[in-house]
Amino acid sequence: MSDTRLVPPPALLYEPVVRRALREDLGVAGDLTTEAIVAPDVQATGVVAARSPGRVAAVTVAARAFTLLDRRVGVRPVVEDGKDVDAGQALAVVDGPAPALLTAERAALNLLSHLCGVATATRDVVTAVAASGARVVATRKTTPGLRGLERYAVRAGGGADHRFGLDDAVLIKDNHLVVAGSIAEAVDRVRRRVGHLVKIQVEVDRLDQLDAALAAAVDAVLLDNLPLDVLREAVRQASGHVVLEASGRITAQTAPDVAATGVDLLSVGWLTHSASALDIGLDLRTVTAA
Amino acid sequence: MSDTRLVPPPALLYEPVVRRALREDLGVAGDLTTEAIVAPDVQATGVVAARSPGRVAAVTVAARAFTLLDRRVGVRPVVEDGKDVDAGQALAVVDGPAPALLTAERAALNLLSHLCGVATATRDVVTAVAASGARVVATRKTTPGLRGLERYAVRAGGGADHRFGLDDAVLIKDNHLVVAGSIAEAVDRVRRRVGHLVKIQVEVDRLDQLDAALAAAVDAVLLDNLPLDVLREAVRQASGHVVLEASGRITAQTAPDVAATGVDLLSVGWLTHSASALDIGLDLRTVTAA
Amino acid sequence: MSDTRLVPPPALLYEPVVRRALREDLGVAGDLTTEAIVAPDVQATGVVAARSPGRVAAVTVAARAFTLLDRRVGVRPVVEDGKDVDAGQALAVVDGPAPALLTAERAALNLLSHLCGVATATRDVVTAVAASGARVVATRKTTPGLRGLERYAVRAGGGADHRFGLDDAVLIKDNHLVVAGSIAEAVDRVRRRVGHLVKIQVEVDRLDQLDAALAAAVDAVLLDNLPLDVLREAVRQASGHVVLEASGRITAQTAPDVAATGVDLLSVGWLTHSASALDIGLDLRTVTAA
Amino acid sequence: MSDTRLVPPPALLYEPVVRRALREDLGVAGDLTTEAIVAPDVQATGVVAARSPGRVAAVTVAARAFTLLDRRVGVRPVVEDGKDVDAGQALAVVDGPAPALLTAERAALNLLSHLCGVATATRDVVTAVAASGARVVATRKTTPGLRGLERYAVRAGGGADHRFGLDDAVLIKDNHLVVAGSIAEAVDRVRRRVGHLVKIQVEVDRLDQLDAALAAAVDAVLLDNLPLDVLREAVRQASGHVVLEASGRITAQTAPDVAATGVDLLSVGWLTHSASALDIGLDLRTVTAA
Amino acid sequence: MSDTRLVPPPALLYEPVVRRALREDLGVAGDLTTEAIVAPDVQATGVVAARSPGRVAAVTVAARAFTLLDRRVGVRPVVEDGKDVDAGQALAVVDGPAPALLTAERAALNLLSHLCGVATATRDVVTAVAASGARVVATRKTTPGLRGLERYAVRAGGGADHRFGLDDAVLIKDNHLVVAGSIAEAVDRVRRRVGHLVKIQVEVDRLDQLDAALAAAVDAVLLDNLPLDVLREAVRQASGHVVLEASGRITAQTAPDVAATGVDLLSVGWLTHSASALDIGLDLRTVTAA
Amino acid sequence: MSDTRLVPPPALLYEPVVRRALREDLGVAGDLTTEAIVAPDVQATGVVAARSPGRVAAVTVAARAFTLLDRRVGVRPVVEDGKDVDAGQALAVVDGPAPALLTAERAALNLLSHLCGVATATRDVVTAVAASGARVVATRKTTPGLRGLERYAVRAGGGADHRFGLDDAVLIKDNHLVVAGSIAEAVDRVRRRVGHLVKIQVEVDRLDQLDAALAAAVDAVLLDNLPLDVLREAVRQASGHVVLEASGRITAQTAPDVAATGVDLLSVGWLTHSASALDIGLDLRTVTAA
Repeated sequence: MSDTRLVPPPALLYEPVVRRALREDLGVAGDLTTEAIVAPDVQATGVVAARSPGRVAAVTVAARAFTLLDRRVGVRPVVEDGKDVDAGQALAVVDGPAPALLTAERAALNLLSHLCGVATATRDVVTAVAASGARVVATRKTTPGLRGLERYAVRAGGGADHRFGLDDAVLIKDNHLVVAGSIAEAVDRVRRRVGHLVKIQVEVDRLDQLDAALAAAVDAVLLDNLPLDVLREAVRQASGHVVLEASGRITAQTAPDVAATGVDLLSVGWLTHSASALDIGLDLRTVTAA
Repeated sequence: MSDTRLVPPPALLYEPVVRRALREDLGVAGDLTTEAIVAPDVQATGVVAARSPGRVAAVTVAARAFTLLDRRVGVRPVVEDGKDVDAGQALAVVDGPAPALLTAERAALNLLSHLCGVATATRDVVTAVAASGARVVATRKTTPGLRGLERYAVRAGGGADHRFGLDDAVLIKDNHLVVAGSIAEAVDRVRRRVGHLVKIQVEVDRLDQLDAALAAAVDAVLLDNLPLDVLREAVRQASGHVVLEASGRITAQTAPDVAATGVDLLSVGWLTHSASALDIGLDLRTVTAA
Repeated sequence: MSDTRLVPPPALLYEPVVRRALREDLGVAGDLTTEAIVAPDVQATGVVAARSPGRVAAVTVAARAFTLLDRRVGVRPVVEDGKDVDAGQALAVVDGPAPALLTAERAALNLLSHLCGVATATRDVVTAVAASGARVVATRKTTPGLRGLERYAVRAGGGADHRFGLDDAVLIKDNHLVVAGSIAEAVDRVRRRVGHLVKIQVEVDRLDQLDAALAAAVDAVLLDNLPLDVLREAVRQASGHVVLEASGRITAQTAPDVAATGVDLLSVGWLTHSASALDIGLDLRTVTAA
Repeated sequence: MSDTRLVPPPALLYEPVVRRALREDLGVAGDLTTEAIVAPDVQATGVVAARSPGRVAAVTVAARAFTLLDRRVGVRPVVEDGKDVDAGQALAVVDGPAPALLTAERAALNLLSHLCGVATATRDVVTAVAASGARVVATRKTTPGLRGLERYAVRAGGGADHRFGLDDAVLIKDNHLVVAGSIAEAVDRVRRRVGHLVKIQVEVDRLDQLDAALAAAVDAVLLDNLPLDVLREAVRQASGHVVLEASGRITAQTAPDVAATGVDLLSVGWLTHSASALDIGLDLRTVTAA
Repeated sequence: MSDTRLVPPPALLYEPVVRRALREDLGVAGDLTTEAIVAPDVQATGVVAARSPGRVAAVTVAARAFTLLDRRVGVRPVVEDGKDVDAGQALAVVDGPAPALLTAERAALNLLSHLCGVATATRDVVTAVAASGARVVATRKTTPGLRGLERYAVRAGGGADHRFGLDDAVLIKDNHLVVAGSIAEAVDRVRRRVGHLVKIQVEVDRLDQLDAALAAAVDAVLLDNLPLDVLREAVRQASGHVVLEASGRITAQTAPDVAATGVDLLSVGWLTHSASALDIGLDLRTVTAA
Repeated sequence: MSDTRLVPPPALLYEPVVRRALREDLGVAGDLTTEAIVAPDVQATGVVAARSPGRVAAVTVAARAFTLLDRRVGVRPVVEDGKDVDAGQALAVVDGPAPALLTAERAALNLLSHLCGVATATRDVVTAVAASGARVVATRKTTPGLRGLERYAVRAGGGADHRFGLDDAVLIKDNHLVVAGSIAEAVDRVRRRVGHLVKIQVEVDRLDQLDAALAAAVDAVLLDNLPLDVLREAVRQASGHVVLEASGRITAQTAPDVAATGVDLLSVGWLTHSASALDIGLDLRTVTAA
């Protein structure tokens, strides 16, 4: 990860997510508690800080909750996306009208905790296989509405991209093979349909399917839920002619063994659908009347 | 949970979530793989089945992905929300045009796995405290855009509701107290602002704050991250005059001890932000030309 | 009202209303008249002024029409929300490109006149009962799309909040009782369903129902369309154990008698659905080429 | 009105209004009360009935709230738009799942009461001038988001259309004249800009401006806030060469005198911004388990 | 055209078009190529220049793609809308972060090329009939979603407006006459329905229908696909009492002859549905690290 | 084209386009003409027919305008997408309420004419190169908001896909090379960033750049605006190791010569940005009262 730049998706893409989060929390009437207790002209400085160690992702994205609520809020990121933090370490400092800080807090933290959680989980698996040449990739098993951001978090964790959706690459799965009858036929149908910039991957769950995939000259093969010795044999048979991706309940603990088989990629669905959120809080440090 | 009916949110509220999930996956061009391989008139029957045991939630909600993509798809739920399933057990049967089943599969499963995961995690904590009278409640630490559905999944898991957003109840937290100066002053400001149907809760992290809360006659007190003996003492002091809610990294393992202190509610943020997705798949069983 | 701060809903919540109003007026082609007559570089100052006396509400909200159309327009409120104005008195001064002032005028004034009308009507009823301790509350009988703003206008008029929607409090009405069979059963069903921060109110239209409501320990009772003597008896029977709300065609004229019965709240639906708009105009004062 | 058909706007145009009303009322969690008390399989029949006499408008539009919430609800209008009803008379019968009827009730009634109120107010003014040949027209002083529906209600009340927005006709007002310098110049600028299907009206508030308007051969003149004798003189001078529209605080009481001056049109802004809602309720008549 | 000002539609109306174009191009993951190659802090200056001669329209509208993607981009138009440019001539200069310039390039140019193409085609027809008094008008045959902008481009090309949509003027076509039975009946039905600011045009395709149209005192007649001699006869018969519009495959080559018949308007549908895009490119001139 | 199935994008993707087209045309008040003339219960049958010969695309997509306006309209396609029609030949038959047919006509035809125009233009170029093995591909030079549909029309014309947007493949253009310094460096940066399913293409405008591209082992090379002899030399040098795409003002006339050079792909931007609309009309054949 260290040599690749990290650029969050453009605001045009992620702002609808943040607006939705805010509207969901504000309802029809807004923040009753803060409105009653905190006068509009009270100014405050807040520190967004990790309460557990982890990998940082999407700080500026999440902090947009504050400025979308009140454009007078200033946001100063303290840590770059893709860096690790210890418990207690600040991620960003926000300052401005205290009501905006308090009202947008949950929307901002919900998004940030989730994405840092994804990045942290990814980092752990990536670190576990660092000795190998294998890359860790996420899948389409993402949270509805958050795919672009979760994939960014995966990259912040050192992971790599898989296809983003159904329209940017071909992945032929078992259900497709049931219809097509064979890998050869399926790939042939795909080749007639898709453009020259679309890669083709086939999912196999038996070693004998690998031959058919190699014969069909696909770009990549997904080896789903195969034991380590079968993975090793697949690597031997493919001998570098095709990208090999292993999947199936891979964790940071099991990842090194999978990587050691020589596959190119480890795909890990839970990075985006089941990673624990990172514990992150907001502390108001200074409160002054304007 | 057994005696309370479970009604999913109206389609008017959740369909935008499902549409977003589908659009995110379809992109500009749709499902290249399926379009190339599966003719539009191929019919199939698919079984949505759990691959791990868990609690079911939002089957009809998630299955809306199939019918939003193609209204000819039929959906027949096999298990009611709020019931437990074993690994291998079917949740729903879908049948109709095979391309629609294959293309909407991921959007449907992503939503369903997530919500069943929330329900399952909730069930585990609820079960752990079943012997006590304590209820398990979720928080506003939800995934952006999914609050209504995640809260429904919590109820399917046997959990109860907390406030839904910033505008339906008052929760005075430490940052508010910093501004107001005291619980008495904060509650007084709130009473002047809010209507007669709004309840007031105060978060305290020291026992001496409980006195002030009781004196202010609030409806509920959130005891944040307090040790068991302090919780017990709080229960004794409150002696039933106020609802007591304990929070702070409560798990199925630690929940019984917390419940045994006599608090009324255990609030558990991770139910919605960090529950593992339930493993759920779709298997195409029958494939015939129309 | 005098001691409670008035904070308009966040722009995130009300800007969609203003955009809709502008788009509805602009159509596909925009303001033909102004575009033809007024050169883009003509600058003007406009005074938004009341043409009848009334209570002011949502000046900055409505003035957002000008800045959403052209961000170069400057808006300077002259009167705070919640204050009274005489006929002729200025509410705000706007200055900037003359075409923007002329084109956004109607969208801004339509919103402002409506909300000041709601505030003024509320003020009149509130003033009428000022001698009593009763509060005046609005209902869910609001204009589609405008609930949050209309409720804000009610508060600007000195009124208090009722529930904002179906999901933030329970109000058991006659139609629910038809299904449940009794108040006791209805309240019991509700208690099992709702969280600890939800208050419960029951609507009764006969005095004997009040007993059942008190027995069920609800938080509030809505006395719908009951004569004054029955209201007085209800107050006597409730003797402070429950919030009592009277409703039914209450006007500024009849409100004092209703308040004198001792009820806590007077709810007045027409404040939001039938208040007359306040007459407000825009006068261009200075026009200069840029 | 009697000889002109009434066709409500297409659902494509009004459904967003109804959805907004429902979402605003349902919030994140939906109808807590009904969900707790009424089982999903309870069936009911409801009668939407007027509680005061008035003119009917937009029954099918408003009833869409029920079917948007639950497509199994059946709606049977009993009275056609544009007809008068007495207090107690039914407007429509709805039947289907009781929860849908109860949950959508307020959204449906809010819209219906408002639009019937507009129609009723219009009818009263139209009736008052029936003896004359004058038509009653509404203005752009409409409620944000509801212009199309309010104008339909005006037609249901027997009123006629004015321009719908800034882009379908030209209305030169005093602020435009300040910039242009003269009616002649303003009309000339407009003629060079607009297409051959755009009519031009000028607002005048002094009789001497009428000459200029006639000289400029505009299609219509708006006589704003002029006394009856001046209106009569204007009618004499115009002698049928231009459509004359009178405006300025016209009520059902004053309308006959204004119409008697011979003007062609009476424009009445309050029909859309200040008409009282018609009192309409929903009574559940039959309740049976499915 | 020379004496009429050109004002693009307000950003409120056209920004949704630009956002859609950007989102369609960015997908879920954004610009892979630029993100990989160009560091976020690289600054550049780009020149938007015509590669073929043509008429300019909507430069600021299209350039909004750059600033919507990154508000730090500066846009400086070099040529005013409505002016002609030679091949190679700059239309605008943009400068700011290089990634934003590269990523928004296609969205900006697609819109600009299309609209300049419309303007150029219009200019060519307008120029061809300059000697006559005839105006060139576009139709409702516009690209879905772009009507307002395409009509602006027509005006930039020197063309005039026709009705913008179905609700701002009446155009009675053959299919309507089939239902109504006669022009007289059709016009009569319309007169009872529409307001005083709506003009009425009838489409005729035989000369004998012109009499009926004149008798019905419509405002304009559309002579569809009639030969030149019939047009001339129509002009003679109408003798200035009605606006005459000729339509039917009019090109810059055939336009002078049509105009010479004396009709007032030439309507040309292909200006908006089939004009060739103008070739416009973006050249990055200066690239420096920030 | 003959051996590849054509499946239009799912309604979920294209319905927003159709709704926008309808709303744009209906405005606030809908179709004044039809509403006045055609009673709601008049039934009609309409034939959508080509008035010029061409290739058919998106008939069901465009016809959705009728059913979105009124779900009672029936649509029966007569010709499949991807087939050729003669002038006069019917594409679809629609029947139902006459007002819906008349009101939605323009929205439906605008979309259909445009997309059939794109398909027809594509077919002409494809036919011209049929003797060669070259494929014809479209570009990202599409109309804002219509990319998915225009690309579908290209496939209906026998063309093939290029990348759909910035996020599904890498295309390194001259502006990127300016920043990266060399093809080698640019490709290297890309390889570190993108996933294993992303193909990489480089645009070159000089033959010596081809060497660098081949050395970098990219998947495809875009030869922009190169003369035929240089294309031939490029084909010779590449000798099948990379997909070669030629672009630059290719027409049906010039395409055969370009194809004869041996390049794999001809990319033709004008297919989507400048194709003439196909002339298509709607004729009402039967009109009966319901």
